[in-house]
Amino acid sequence: MPLSPNHPGVLIVEVGPRDGLQAEDRILSTDDKVELVRRLADAGNHAIEVTSFVSSKAVPQLADADELMRRLGRRSGVRYSALVPNEKGLDRALASKVEEIALFASATESYSRKNLNRDREEVIASYEPLIRRAKDGGVRVRAYLSMIFADPWDGPTPTKVVVDMGRRLLEFGCDELSLGDTIGVGTPGDVAKLINAFRDTDVEVDEFAFHFHDTYGQALANAYAAISEGVTVFDASVGGIGGSPFAKMAGGNLATEDLVWMCRGMKIETGIDLDKLVATSHWLGEQLGRELPAHASRAMRSGDH
Amino acid sequence: MPLSPNHPGVLIVEVGPRDGLQAEDRILSTDDKVELVRRLADAGNHAIEVTSFVSSKAVPQLADADELMRRLGRRSGVRYSALVPNEKGLDRALASKVEEIALFASATESYSRKNLNRDREEVIASYEPLIRRAKDGGVRVRAYLSMIFADPWDGPTPTKVVVDMGRRLLEFGCDELSLGDTIGVGTPGDVAKLINAFRDTDVEVDEFAFHFHDTYGQALANAYAAISEGVTVFDASVGGIGGSPFAKMAGGNLATEDLVWMCRGMKIETGIDLDKLVATSHWLGEQLGRELPAHASRAMRSGDH
Repeated sequence: MPLSPNHPGVLIVEVGPRDGLQAEDRILSTDDKVELVRRLADAGNHAIEVTSFVSSKAVPQLADADELMRRLGRRSGVRYSALVPNEKGLDRALASKVEEIALFASATESYSRKNLNRDREEVIASYEPLIRRAKDGGVRVRAYLSMIFADPWDGPTPTKVVVDMGRRLLEFGCDELSLGDTIGVGTPGDVAKLINAFRDTDVEVDEFAFHFHDTYGQALANAYAAISEGVTVFDASVGGIGGSPFAKMAGGNLATEDLVWMCRGMKIETGIDLDKLVATSHWLGEQLGRELPAHASRAMRSGDH
Repeated sequence: MPLSPNHPGVLIVEVGPRDGLQAEDRILSTDDKVELVRRLADAGNHAIEVTSFVSSKAVPQLADADELMRRLGRRSGVRYSALVPNEKGLDRALASKVEEIALFASATESYSRKNLNRDREEVIASYEPLIRRAKDGGVRVRAYLSMIFADPWDGPTPTKVVVDMGRRLLEFGCDELSLGDTIGVGTPGDVAKLINAFRDTDVEVDEFAFHFHDTYGQALANAYAAISEGVTVFDASVGGIGGSPFAKMAGGNLATEDLVWMCRGMKIETGIDLDKLVATSHWLGEQLGRELPAHASRAMRSGDH
């Protein structure tokens, strides 16, 4: 069941509690969030992004980040992570004793301004001291780079920009780069092309993860294309919840259970118990008051699998 | 726009009007069906399975097969096809002057009995004279072989059975074998394994198509895996409608627009105009009174693409 330390399989970074919930209208109680994370960990998730230290005005759903982190504490075999937008967020993250922080940058100018209210260059530059401080504090650092294939306002994203920005984040000391197709427009050829562009500059696949959205139904095909190229870390959200409050055209995240179904079928270890994960997805759907988009959970509702 | 005669791209066999509609509760008028097929052809579909010559008691939705075929006639550049279950159905198909018939067999015993009320061996044997008669009548023949990876009652389907049955259908004179994962449980490794098993017996990829269902969200990843192995013909349904009236756990078909989105992104020609296809999907959703599952059509509803 548990993945070995260097996970010879696919490591799924469960982003439902943060990236997923922040797109939901119905605000869950802290009790429910604690239960969600506990259920996900019980199902065998090894990495969970649990919240975000942003302002509660920007993302009301995640206003209880400090309390949630305090109540979750640490759990052996699971890495809890929290998004941090700036130095103030890092102060809160360090005080919460989180093991990993995630930073968020955009490969495109328009999304950077809309989402972060700053130029992408200004954002990246501000992360250099922040990453150093986090690393000095013994905290692992993950960096999201979003809009890797295209941006709704700026059009196609030049591959060179993605590679250059990604390399800089890694040079600043990031442990992992999560490459996000935020609006879900990419197809398997784009995935292979980007991986090869990174390889051409000596950034290997073990330094990055992919973060796909299913807006155009491409998420799992893209994940399979990335697996074929040797990528082993993928962000996904239970139930396929998600989107972006700052880009309405973003669809839900790649659904964790659909990715686990594929990996299980391909004999690729994920460490996740699919039945427990699907039960968690059904439970979450009840809390959110709607049927969640993940296919495997819908199919397994009847107990047929 | 049009595919060349030997389609150096992906040829999509649009099965929405038959495989899709037969799973729908709301019965469309013949006028609406004529319009659906016309819209699909206008969007650039080169192959459309338009109806089925089954008994109207078995599938009430398709009770107007004879009238529909008469009203559609023939159209240059598009191949209309109709499912035929037996000799009586073939009589009707020949009278309708259809260019292609499709036969339906199951690789598993339980589904054969439930769907066709006969042993799979009896079904296959009955198709030998039927195929000969159709070919003698100048009609192209396609054969579906369903439950290629597993069956809800019989469990995993032995690859050898699928290959043996597929080979027999081809030896009987079928022009094309459509391999169906009817309950949508397969993953990309299963696809590659089956293709290689056919290759080991000298059946090459240009002799078959794949027919995926999206029950567990695997359909497009499986299509991509098959494309990577050289397969160029795929069944898909506009809007992702479908399922099986004889196996309730079957999800919708691979959505045509999601496949076209992927092919377009990968510069693989399909001959299909995505905007027109999506408009047809939206129109069909209105006729059926529900939002259809295809992702690309939902995303493109706002005009953002």
